[in-house]
Amino acid sequence: LATRKKQKKEDATSMAARQREIAVSEFFSKNRHLLGFDNLSKALLTTVREAVDNALDACEEAHILPEIHVTVKELAETRFSVTIEDNGPGILKSQLPKIFAKLLYGSKFHRLKQSRGQQGIGISAAVMYGQMTTGQPAVVISKTSQGKPAHKLKLQIDTQRNQPKVIDDVIIDNKHWNEKESGTAITITLEATYKGGKHGVASYLHQSALSNSHAIFVFTDPKGKVHDYPRVVNELPKEPKEIKPHPHGVELGTLMHLLEASRGKTVSKFLKDTFSRVSAKTAADICKTAKVKGGASASKAGRNEAEKLYNAIQNTKLLAPSTDCVSPIGEEALIKGLYWLFVEAQKHQEEERKAQKAQQDLFEAANDKEKEGDDAQEEPVVEKEGGNVQMELALAPDGTLASDEKGYFVTAVTRSPNVYRGNPFQVEVGIFYGKGLAGDDQARVFRFANRVPLQYQASACAMTKSVTSTRWKTYGLNQSRGSLPIGPVVIMVHIASAWVPYTSESKEAIANYDEILKELRLAINECGRRLQKFLRRKRKEADEEKKRSYIIKYMNPIGEALQEILGFSDSQKDETISSLKEILEDARGHMPGGRSIK
Amino acid sequence: LATRKKQKKEDATSMAARQREIAVSEFFSKNRHLLGFDNLSKALLTTVREAVDNALDACEEAHILPEIHVTVKELAETRFSVTIEDNGPGILKSQLPKIFAKLLYGSKFHRLKQSRGQQGIGISAAVMYGQMTTGQPAVVISKTSQGKPAHKLKLQIDTQRNQPKVIDDVIIDNKHWNEKESGTAITITLEATYKGGKHGVASYLHQSALSNSHAIFVFTDPKGKVHDYPRVVNELPKEPKEIKPHPHGVELGTLMHLLEASRGKTVSKFLKDTFSRVSAKTAADICKTAKVKGGASASKAGRNEAEKLYNAIQNTKLLAPSTDCVSPIGEEALIKGLYWLFVEAQKHQEEERKAQKAQQDLFEAANDKEKEGDDAQEEPVVEKEGGNVQMELALAPDGTLASDEKGYFVTAVTRSPNVYRGNPFQVEVGIFYGKGLAGDDQARVFRFANRVPLQYQASACAMTKSVTSTRWKTYGLNQSRGSLPIGPVVIMVHIASAWVPYTSESKEAIANYDEILKELRLAINECGRRLQKFLRRKRKEADEEKKRSYIIKYMNPIGEALQEILGFSDSQKDETISSLKEILEDARGHMPGGRSIK
Repeated sequence: LATRKKQKKEDATSMAARQREIAVSEFFSKNRHLLGFDNLSKALLTTVREAVDNALDACEEAHILPEIHVTVKELAETRFSVTIEDNGPGILKSQLPKIFAKLLYGSKFHRLKQSRGQQGIGISAAVMYGQMTTGQPAVVISKTSQGKPAHKLKLQIDTQRNQPKVIDDVIIDNKHWNEKESGTAITITLEATYKGGKHGVASYLHQSALSNSHAIFVFTDPKGKVHDYPRVVNELPKEPKEIKPHPHGVELGTLMHLLEASRGKTVSKFLKDTFSRVSAKTAADICKTAKVKGGASASKAGRNEAEKLYNAIQNTKLLAPSTDCVSPIGEEALIKGLYWLFVEAQKHQEEERKAQKAQQDLFEAANDKEKEGDDAQEEPVVEKEGGNVQMELALAPDGTLASDEKGYFVTAVTRSPNVYRGNPFQVEVGIFYGKGLAGDDQARVFRFANRVPLQYQASACAMTKSVTSTRWKTYGLNQSRGSLPIGPVVIMVHIASAWVPYTSESKEAIANYDEILKELRLAINECGRRLQKFLRRKRKEADEEKKRSYIIKYMNPIGEALQEILGFSDSQKDETISSLKEILEDARGHMPGGRSIK
Repeated sequence: LATRKKQKKEDATSMAARQREIAVSEFFSKNRHLLGFDNLSKALLTTVREAVDNALDACEEAHILPEIHVTVKELAETRFSVTIEDNGPGILKSQLPKIFAKLLYGSKFHRLKQSRGQQGIGISAAVMYGQMTTGQPAVVISKTSQGKPAHKLKLQIDTQRNQPKVIDDVIIDNKHWNEKESGTAITITLEATYKGGKHGVASYLHQSALSNSHAIFVFTDPKGKVHDYPRVVNELPKEPKEIKPHPHGVELGTLMHLLEASRGKTVSKFLKDTFSRVSAKTAADICKTAKVKGGASASKAGRNEAEKLYNAIQNTKLLAPSTDCVSPIGEEALIKGLYWLFVEAQKHQEEERKAQKAQQDLFEAANDKEKEGDDAQEEPVVEKEGGNVQMELALAPDGTLASDEKGYFVTAVTRSPNVYRGNPFQVEVGIFYGKGLAGDDQARVFRFANRVPLQYQASACAMTKSVTSTRWKTYGLNQSRGSLPIGPVVIMVHIASAWVPYTSESKEAIANYDEILKELRLAINECGRRLQKFLRRKRKEADEEKKRSYIIKYMNPIGEALQEILGFSDSQKDETISSLKEILEDARGHMPGGRSIK
């Protein structure tokens, strides 16, 4: 066909010789960007995130209030070690290799229950990434209960077979682990860079603290600085229940497969046992509609029977899926979290800054002492002890926490659960407005799914879309059409679901389902209306203040001028001024929203 | 911790009992949107695309000019069957089950060579999707050479184990397959919807024809209408070579693994055999720099030696990766393809429309015959025979094909190969301007990677970004800043690479690598400059024409007026007018670009 030199012409036989199985670990090592390891700084964040997600899930399943320590150390210019230690229930020694060094292995994939992890890939992918980039095995320590030993394993993945390799296996005997009741620690050495900013580890933990106000996070950064995120809610969140799939969500092929796999069950019992919202009565109805015998063997049903059952299910009215499989953060926890991060923590930072400044000043001019920072706390309602913060916050009846004086406002709305494509989900939105944030910047949107902060692909996410498509001008904030509103505002959005519809495997954005967008809109609008009231009051107060100062400023000179012109006595003058004030106040009283001044 | 009823509190033992392996097929069936099966219309397109990609790859590897038949039939409201048949080399019967019904199996993953498929997932994912949504097995027919039988297998996937199941296995004996030399056909029944528009199958094949001008596509749509995309280049594209990885792209962990797996080789030989651009001399240099003995056993090298070798490799100057592993479409094929689609095919459609219109007119008013369409072809350079189109196109020296008279312009630029992160790639851009396209719409951008049209996630793609960031006003097109240009324009962009950096598994957009963006920009600018010349000429001619008609129109009345006012004789009048014309022409001659009129 052409004159140039050709490579060997292939045929079916030569091509067959090259066909090979691809281990899932090979696949993801070559496609590692799909899992969030596409650049050095993201690799570090992803590693922390996967380990923290697992730690939080494990603590909650064991009903333990989580305390998580994250340590990032710089070993060389682009080489770091990352250690995540939890106080969870620990992991049996026999399970450690597979959990940390085998992709697609886990306990969360085969069930319908809200959790952070789902796929059984994340942490093993981090181990694999570390191994590929530095050749170092992961080091895992775990202890399952007081009195039992803590095991320390060094683990690698055989990427060509997706199997774990145990390099080293010892028992740890030191004070820390001997005293610790239970828990797991993992250390991964990896090629990475450490970045601050909104995609950094500190920002991720800052946001995690917001969505997990029942957890303590302690982060030691590469410079040895300790960032402390205390616990502000001393109770575990409502535990989501595991549910069975809803029959309206099943597909024909899947139904056939389930029937085939149901050993020894009748069709009726199969329907009742396999699905939620199917009682014995409903099962009988379905069989009747399908003209399939309820007492027949389920595993012997052929394609015909399956198709008839499938159609009957579609035509049977059923209760909507149960929604107790989702667990929201809750309005109070959201408000406390936002209050803590943007009022208290801000204040602490302010104090820290002041203290640093003071030290610096002392250093620079030892005799100049009046600049020293003021350490007095002004809000006695907050006590910090250990990692726990005791907060007694009095919310207004409309579910807001605001201080006109200090100029902040917090509110949150948790919607009732709803369903998209058969999957229960629940949406909640919190808003913080106020001091410490720049007033002429765009609002910041913190996105969360099953309590995990999402830090990439904001523009592709339904949560961002729901914020930018809201008309914030109605609620008193500036906004260019289709953009984020302008103001000292943080908007926190959370979706909880037994099956979060991520747009990609690296779990960075939520797909645009109409049902989800609608719930988001309703929650945002409610928060917006509350914010609007606060802003209106704030504006009115500012106006009042201006008028008050105006009246006070000019009333007396006016009085004196009148006295001079008209020859009033002092009492006449006072009387006139008083009437004048009254008239002015009256006039203002008729202005919309006017309030009299005492 | 709380008063409400709890689910069972988990511990390490109860959690271990729930840990399970997840088959990759289970993973992707639950995450099928990652592979392009997220909605009914996309599922149809993805199925066609995966099968066509494989067919084209197979034909090219066997040096066969591809002829591909796609048939989509509507079986019920949301149930379709899709059949793709090729004239490729066929597949050995023993390989059929794994190739079509096992995820992560294939011949393309473990090599560095440009091809459409890479991952060994696509077609099996389509089979799995069909099976899950309709319960129907896939039907595969394949024949490897004249004289051998055509085998027909019905295949399913055991999704829980990722293993193929053969439901039926027969030999086909019919005229079609007996006469056919070799080839493969696959039929998948699936839940889907059929959509027109830019995300539809017809649009996909339209674009595939553009990037595969050496292939014939015949598409029978659900209404039985046959869409014909003929072959316009009678030669296979340059076959890309398989290359070895470049040492600068290897990571430490991977190097350790490769060393360990290199049985019986010395370090020197290992380096030379494993990587491209490493001669015996270079290998010796690397060993010297690393202070590792070249004659030592490679598989016995420990972490220390590996790290020394790794550092030595980074510090050794090497030739850039070889670029013969990429194969562009080529400027001529791009121009022919664009010309065919937007001039010839347009004309055919026009004729078809005219013929339909004529029939309609005949039907509506049997006596009104003068409206009948004109069937005469105006361009004798194009002959169509079978599925091949013979085109003799004379390109201008600047690589453009244009007709001022007919108002079209085509050009294309194929850049030299370049390298991003160690991966060779090559970029090319084609532009069509002209009739048949709406002049006040935004330009359409056709994106391709390894000849495969990309139809989703345009806004996330480096190719789109490179078009919108070009300043098209310079080249004579209107444009709002950061948007696509306005005009009757199609811009075709192609990237060829042994490793295309897709932003997601479903292969829909290209990541923003600086090196890639730069090459794209250079190619677009060159096309833009050529377009600019054409548009300038076109505009000038329009101006000339206007002036010519102006002079002709007004000269005579002016002469007559002068005659009347000044009492000129006819000859005086003619003389005056002639001088007047001359002066005007002269004046225009001095205007930039003015041309005299004869």
